[in-house]
Amino acid sequence: MTDHPEITTDIVAVEEPLEIRLATEGETKKVSITMRTPGHDEELALGFLFTEGIISDYQAVQQVDVDTLTGQFIEVGLRKGESPRLNQIERNFYTTSSCGVCGKASLDAVRVHSKYRNTDNPIKIRASVLSQLPASALLRQGAFNQTGGLHASALFDSAGSFALIREDVGRHNALDKVIGHSFAKGLLPLKDSLLLLSGRISFELVQKAVMAGIPVIAAIGAPSSLAISLAEEEGVTLIGFLREGRYNVYTHPHRIDV
Amino acid sequence: MTDHPEITTDIVAVEEPLEIRLATEGETKKVSITMRTPGHDEELALGFLFTEGIISDYQAVQQVDVDTLTGQFIEVGLRKGESPRLNQIERNFYTTSSCGVCGKASLDAVRVHSKYRNTDNPIKIRASVLSQLPASALLRQGAFNQTGGLHASALFDSAGSFALIREDVGRHNALDKVIGHSFAKGLLPLKDSLLLLSGRISFELVQKAVMAGIPVIAAIGAPSSLAISLAEEEGVTLIGFLREGRYNVYTHPHRIDV
Repeated sequence: MTDHPEITTDIVAVEEPLEIRLATEGETKKVSITMRTPGHDEELALGFLFTEGIISDYQAVQQVDVDTLTGQFIEVGLRKGESPRLNQIERNFYTTSSCGVCGKASLDAVRVHSKYRNTDNPIKIRASVLSQLPASALLRQGAFNQTGGLHASALFDSAGSFALIREDVGRHNALDKVIGHSFAKGLLPLKDSLLLLSGRISFELVQKAVMAGIPVIAAIGAPSSLAISLAEEEGVTLIGFLREGRYNVYTHPHRIDV
Repeated sequence: MTDHPEITTDIVAVEEPLEIRLATEGETKKVSITMRTPGHDEELALGFLFTEGIISDYQAVQQVDVDTLTGQFIEVGLRKGESPRLNQIERNFYTTSSCGVCGKASLDAVRVHSKYRNTDNPIKIRASVLSQLPASALLRQGAFNQTGGLHASALFDSAGSFALIREDVGRHNALDKVIGHSFAKGLLPLKDSLLLLSGRISFELVQKAVMAGIPVIAAIGAPSSLAISLAEEEGVTLIGFLREGRYNVYTHPHRIDV
């Protein structure tokens, strides 16, 4: 109870704004401002640009300039002749065009289409491997243990070997960092990978995984209805409530070897 | 363990896109597409437009048209002569203007300024009341209990009496629904209110609460660093990790009566 208030020091998760800019032949555009936990900003910017469908090939990237003084912006410069697909991002955000009732379904407007297909991916995960993943990720999760305030995204291979973990106050940022890292290392599509998420599974997270060709997503939390629909359609195996040796499989259970 | 897979039915949280449109004298603009849990869409749209600083007075609203067929868009119509502050929303989103290094801090770009001040708000909350709030909210939280997939925002008065709860797959949406309800009922500023959040506290959530004149925010989860800075600056009492009869007070503890 609270009859004994104490003055103590608490370690909290850092949240700061990052402006992502894109430079193409003499013109610089602000693409997004995201509230993120500083660290791995280059991965975040590249992952964001890739999963939003704005750039699709790492060869298009000439350089990445980080604002080392304030850490408040990052600029991704494209090679001459490369043109980003910025119409992709306008789908989500404010547009000044007068539109009226355009008849286009809103869902179409938020979809990004992947160049990778998961439907035929023959990867199999053993059920006994699945159950070990949360503990394995927790071992590597530094900041969350201290602050309780971060989301984590982790990659494992189909045999359950740990590959990578990233943490952020924003769950979409943690995933963008994981995918940005893989994009820059030439590891896409992540066809032998399982993605573990520390929280709930939204449509947006499934879509980002689909962009990177990830065939299996497992989460400690619950999936939303639209996350399930998208995973079903895109051939992704979706696993929720992975805790204490149990889990629910929502789509494409054939990849799980019981 | 997983040696006994079962085929069962699971209840999941619904997530669907909603396009928010704003109609002013003959012109309709798309303002945002948000992934939300359907229900209380009118509150969500009004709350979003208010907390983003786009409209500041309910008298400016002439009508709200809901797309009852598909539920995919909602249009807020303003009275003749009313002009929305759409430059406010461009701060967050993609802009086509070439910018270069403008020297303006990114944090300024994401701030919205409230017409209400909390600094002098003399509200007091008894510590014993605080401890009861999570249980009280949980009683009213319908969908989360079933799906484990929703965030909740609830309002209580300073004596701990329950006023309102809204749930959504997006925590910012749950709060926009609570504030949109209060905005439309003429209840702003919410100066005798405590806001209870089911998850973590981000900068964005504190900012929305500040827009509505809420002096005390308590959350089951952790606050971010920027959430704490903003609460400190804006005179908001910020309480985190409110669980099992304990809590941490990060800012302005004078409002808590131990």
